[in-house]
Amino acid sequence: MASLQDISVSAAINIISAIAFLVAFAILRLQPVNDRVYFPKWYLKGIRGSPTRSGGFVSTFVNLDFRTYIRFLNWMPAALRMPEPELINHAGLDSTAFIRIYLLGLKIFVPITFLAFVVLVPVNWTGETLETIKDVTFSNIDKLSISNVPSGSQRFWAHLVMAYVFTFWTFYILYREYKLMTNMRLQFLASEDRSPDQYTVLVRNVPPDSDESVSEHVEHFFCVNHPDYYLTHQVVYNANKLAKLVDKKKSLQNWYIYYQNKYERNPSKKPTMKTGFWGLWGTRVDAIDYYAAEIEKLTDEEQAERERVISDPKAIIPAAFVSFKSRWGAAVCAQTQQTSNPTIWLTEWAPEPRDVYWDNLAIPYVKLTIRRLLMAVSLFFLTFFFMIPIAFVQSLANIEGIEKVLPFLKPLIERKGVKSLIQGFLPGIALKIFLILLPTILMTMSKIEGFTSLSSLERRSAGKYHLFVLVNVFLGSIIAGTAFQQLKSFLHQAPTEIPITIGVSIPMKATFFITYIMVDGWAGIAAEILRLVPLVVFHLKNTFLVKTEKDREQAMDPGCLGFATSEPRIQLYFLLGFVYSVVTPVLLPFIIVFFAFAYMVFRHQVINVYNQKYESAAAFWPDVHRRLIIGMVISQLLLMGLMSTKDATNSTPLLIVLPVLTIWFHIFCKGRFESAFVKLPLQNAMVRDTLERATEPNLNLKAYLQDAYVHPVFRGGELEKPAVIDEEENNPLVPTKRTSRRSSKYGSDCSSEAGI
Amino acid sequence: MASLQDISVSAAINIISAIAFLVAFAILRLQPVNDRVYFPKWYLKGIRGSPTRSGGFVSTFVNLDFRTYIRFLNWMPAALRMPEPELINHAGLDSTAFIRIYLLGLKIFVPITFLAFVVLVPVNWTGETLETIKDVTFSNIDKLSISNVPSGSQRFWAHLVMAYVFTFWTFYILYREYKLMTNMRLQFLASEDRSPDQYTVLVRNVPPDSDESVSEHVEHFFCVNHPDYYLTHQVVYNANKLAKLVDKKKSLQNWYIYYQNKYERNPSKKPTMKTGFWGLWGTRVDAIDYYAAEIEKLTDEEQAERERVISDPKAIIPAAFVSFKSRWGAAVCAQTQQTSNPTIWLTEWAPEPRDVYWDNLAIPYVKLTIRRLLMAVSLFFLTFFFMIPIAFVQSLANIEGIEKVLPFLKPLIERKGVKSLIQGFLPGIALKIFLILLPTILMTMSKIEGFTSLSSLERRSAGKYHLFVLVNVFLGSIIAGTAFQQLKSFLHQAPTEIPITIGVSIPMKATFFITYIMVDGWAGIAAEILRLVPLVVFHLKNTFLVKTEKDREQAMDPGCLGFATSEPRIQLYFLLGFVYSVVTPVLLPFIIVFFAFAYMVFRHQVINVYNQKYESAAAFWPDVHRRLIIGMVISQLLLMGLMSTKDATNSTPLLIVLPVLTIWFHIFCKGRFESAFVKLPLQNAMVRDTLERATEPNLNLKAYLQDAYVHPVFRGGELEKPAVIDEEENNPLVPTKRTSRRSSKYGSDCSSEAGI
Repeated sequence: MASLQDISVSAAINIISAIAFLVAFAILRLQPVNDRVYFPKWYLKGIRGSPTRSGGFVSTFVNLDFRTYIRFLNWMPAALRMPEPELINHAGLDSTAFIRIYLLGLKIFVPITFLAFVVLVPVNWTGETLETIKDVTFSNIDKLSISNVPSGSQRFWAHLVMAYVFTFWTFYILYREYKLMTNMRLQFLASEDRSPDQYTVLVRNVPPDSDESVSEHVEHFFCVNHPDYYLTHQVVYNANKLAKLVDKKKSLQNWYIYYQNKYERNPSKKPTMKTGFWGLWGTRVDAIDYYAAEIEKLTDEEQAERERVISDPKAIIPAAFVSFKSRWGAAVCAQTQQTSNPTIWLTEWAPEPRDVYWDNLAIPYVKLTIRRLLMAVSLFFLTFFFMIPIAFVQSLANIEGIEKVLPFLKPLIERKGVKSLIQGFLPGIALKIFLILLPTILMTMSKIEGFTSLSSLERRSAGKYHLFVLVNVFLGSIIAGTAFQQLKSFLHQAPTEIPITIGVSIPMKATFFITYIMVDGWAGIAAEILRLVPLVVFHLKNTFLVKTEKDREQAMDPGCLGFATSEPRIQLYFLLGFVYSVVTPVLLPFIIVFFAFAYMVFRHQVINVYNQKYESAAAFWPDVHRRLIIGMVISQLLLMGLMSTKDATNSTPLLIVLPVLTIWFHIFCKGRFESAFVKLPLQNAMVRDTLERATEPNLNLKAYLQDAYVHPVFRGGELEKPAVIDEEENNPLVPTKRTSRRSSKYGSDCSSEAGI
Repeated sequence: MASLQDISVSAAINIISAIAFLVAFAILRLQPVNDRVYFPKWYLKGIRGSPTRSGGFVSTFVNLDFRTYIRFLNWMPAALRMPEPELINHAGLDSTAFIRIYLLGLKIFVPITFLAFVVLVPVNWTGETLETIKDVTFSNIDKLSISNVPSGSQRFWAHLVMAYVFTFWTFYILYREYKLMTNMRLQFLASEDRSPDQYTVLVRNVPPDSDESVSEHVEHFFCVNHPDYYLTHQVVYNANKLAKLVDKKKSLQNWYIYYQNKYERNPSKKPTMKTGFWGLWGTRVDAIDYYAAEIEKLTDEEQAERERVISDPKAIIPAAFVSFKSRWGAAVCAQTQQTSNPTIWLTEWAPEPRDVYWDNLAIPYVKLTIRRLLMAVSLFFLTFFFMIPIAFVQSLANIEGIEKVLPFLKPLIERKGVKSLIQGFLPGIALKIFLILLPTILMTMSKIEGFTSLSSLERRSAGKYHLFVLVNVFLGSIIAGTAFQQLKSFLHQAPTEIPITIGVSIPMKATFFITYIMVDGWAGIAAEILRLVPLVVFHLKNTFLVKTEKDREQAMDPGCLGFATSEPRIQLYFLLGFVYSVVTPVLLPFIIVFFAFAYMVFRHQVINVYNQKYESAAAFWPDVHRRLIIGMVISQLLLMGLMSTKDATNSTPLLIVLPVLTIWFHIFCKGRFESAFVKLPLQNAMVRDTLERATEPNLNLKAYLQDAYVHPVFRGGELEKPAVIDEEENNPLVPTKRTSRRSSKYGSDCSSEAGI
């Protein structure tokens, strides 16, 4: 076990690195040249047109106002100053709900920490068990944990009572938060501007008809079965190939611009390039001409494909976006079953246009269930057996292996410095690459499962990632050994033995997890705010590609909250909090610092940086709630296991009540709140319809909806919602003057951070 | 292990008793005096008015036509002769679907048996393991089982392949049957006559409103939110107290009639009675006068209560039956969520009027979830710990205990014959009483859970009973010991050990289960057709209570298919079939005989006897399917356990595929078919609406629906659907002439048979 001193050292290192990151951030963000890296959201919203610092030439790149450096932490209060309703307006409900998860952590754990330090720490401290055992080395941290209480002691009543108190407190907070979130969502949906998805239903698995085209078939079906409400529909084209061509053209255009810029800066030398793979070999040609020719060729190809897609009836997939005359009509259609065969004419709420995942709209039912089976099996193997291929790669990727495959590298490798570097580095790198790739792998798996919106894909991936973190990080850290070995040992252990095996190791791993929290939580979050990768990428792009202001806008990578990876990692902190709240309360303050710090950082990022790709109105909250409940149940089972090794077995009947209650609480909340996240109630739809009919009796809805759901390649990416003009320029956080108002034409790529 | 001879003896006894029952049935059913016991359905349908045998006085009681006795099994072909569509018309889809479960058993197990006897029996027989072990006594049956194959033999490949073949065959049959049942249900619903439940939605948890009554509130809400479709509604009165008074009055009236009949038969002596408890003490009074006075008093009381209920606004519970102008409108309302709070204004399809369970219409959400939690915990304790109170009662109910409590019985008990009788009998009787009461206990638990229709109550009870049978009969027979001991041992065993523990015992228990099938299946079913209890009760009532033809009709107890108890017991046979199909195929013919025999018996009963209380259009089929899948998964896990003890551990990876596939198959079927049993598709509703509008444009739906959902006490029990006149008198099975056409005014009591 690490001693108090070890922890202090680790804490010092992490605090110093966190502070270093923060100072770097404070300095970098004040430089006008970095303005688009640290405040992209304001540009995207059209409120800020260019860095506003006025002054000479130098001051457009470097901030010379030294007074601003003194207050290097002043972004923190600024981030907290924006009130929540304005934040929802500014960044959307998804982001607001996401940062509320951190706030939820504070709400749950601050009172628990207080109580634990008042009640449990004295009880543990005066337990005086560890001092009586001569052979064991122990630290002061262990003296504060449950390990210091003698077996069979009456003191365990305190832990038992506290377990109940903590559980009920968590219930109370979770219930309140779920209720609040439900209200926020309903209010958000009610106050939202008119949007196409409110009137539209996604219809999938349109059955084939020998006499009619898909479009006619859809129209006839809904004219017959929803005669009073059906308005119009849009068929979906299979434009996947076209989208690929468009992407390829965009990349070629980037290169074209790059070489043109190069030529303009240095007109004496025409840039040349090789046509082969990665420009490594092939004939040398004039780069500008080459790319111009390539682009033209691709443009023709794209045009041909575009015409084929529009004219070929086979390019229409058996799905459609059906719009209704009123929200009520759409709500009815989305919630009801259309025909006696529940695998055709499937209706669901249309995702908002930005949120549609176009590739998955045409998967038939049988294929879908088979895909889900395969993915479930794959997930199982990925979670429990991922170490096997990695170990295999590691065994190949040693010095001898490399020398065998690439003999010409031998002289290089054999050098002493290089050799030791490879030997020390290579075994780890395969694992690290896997962990970096993991979110992408999981997202691909979710895509194969056939979900039709980006938001649901993210939610599914988050679920998978959560399982992975739970098994490989949490259990993997507590019980040394790979997940596969754990699985094997669990299969050969009695169900009652498992919580005991894990429970016993829990107190011993407290110091490890404290270190983990400081590295991953504290320093990791501080690194998040620095945005080192987007900073470098932006300046590279800015140097080589940017010609106009428009280009510069495209070079910004605001990123977004990666729900699929971030949320499961927050859940790990909740889990640690629940598990250690009774066992080793001294861990709790570290978690509180994490939640508080992360809350501020992400609030700042959400306000100034991130640009969400879609808005699902906090549709993920039921998932968050469910995973919190899973964490609670795990912690209760482990406590039960731990207690039963402490000769406090008669506590088991009392402790078994807790998971039963927790699961019941989950079912209760699910019934009470979940449907608000799944269905739109008819009453709410009716209220808005009535209001709209009164205020805008002459609205031409058909024209409004006509082109709402067109595949993005057919409209050149104008998918962004029109930005809402609000009172943001009066915002004290970032004083700007509104110079232009336009919306970005390019969705941002989420920088999904891996590495656990 | 029982030898072949033991089984032969047991088979002989059971076959003889079954034949005895059948002969008794054949003789009794031909006596005109028993006509109402064995053919009540025809009376209830109004097709048969009185026993049709003509002749002298004697022949109205006894059948003297000896020719009819010769063909004592001729009811069997007669039962099979009625074609299925006619059967659905005659007995409803519920009954037809129920007897199809037996047919399903035949479809699954006849080919499996054939294959198993062709492939597995020779493989096992020539295994020659048991003969080489000297110390073990074995029978010929064991030589046919998997025990006869040597450990680690390549012969297990045959079993492995057969497990796959059987699984896929079962998939095929189950899929076909689910599809067929779905079509039958949809067709049945489509061809059903107009009925109030097609237009009506049950609304529960109407929120309180300070300004409006429940009725006004409901009307306003639906006028606003379903303006185009809302037609009318009926509030629900809390008439539970009134219903009790009515019941009590009916019982008093029975006694009144009994004494009046007694007086009429013997006018010389006025009957008297004692007023105290059970007529055991109290003052002696004139019975006829006493009951007349009591009935009058109760009539007044009932009248007062009736007026109170109708006038008191507090007697209206916050639930209502809301009717719509079209089936489409009702389908929309039933499938959608009304308000943002999913715990109020809950809408669901109204059960048909006969099917409503009135007591449960007014339970608020929080109470409901707490009730379900309590019932789930109770079910757990009931299943695993029911032996504890019974053991306690058994320990009390010994000779000494009785002598202590009731010392005056001492001389009687001390007699030798009585003493041994009590000692041999008492310990068993507590268990037997519990098992008889069990279905009632489970039904009460389901009622507490708050379901609103009798059909859903029966389905819930069946689920509970299934768990009980699974744990206490199946596992309890394989592993000796109480469920509690099993639970304890399972908790302390590794999950991989459990299938092994059970799997090993499986082959050894084959003979036990063969005997069980013969006793419970063969003889039990034969006893079912004899209807001994209803026979006795009818003749008692006929002697003492019946004055008019109408009374005689009321004295009939047709009974009904007790889904809650019968279905889980069929599932036990399916489970045995699945488990033993690979292990000991010789058990399969016994199961086939059971299914064939039961199919014929129940088809006969459904045609001639049972009178279902409600019609749910086979809404239970998803439950049947799910439990069959559970049986399959259990059998696959046990096979895996058994195989791994036979040194065929490398079969495990191949066998683990089977449960995964089976669960996937379940999910697939659920998605494909289940919604047909839960929702009414809009298309089907629209078709019927359009048809109706064309054929009956002047239908006054409001008048039709006005009083459809009135609590039965307000209309004197006229709840039965009007009987359908069909071509039943031409049916060759029971030649009758139509004399009267009336419907029974009294629902029949289901004789729920307990005893496992």
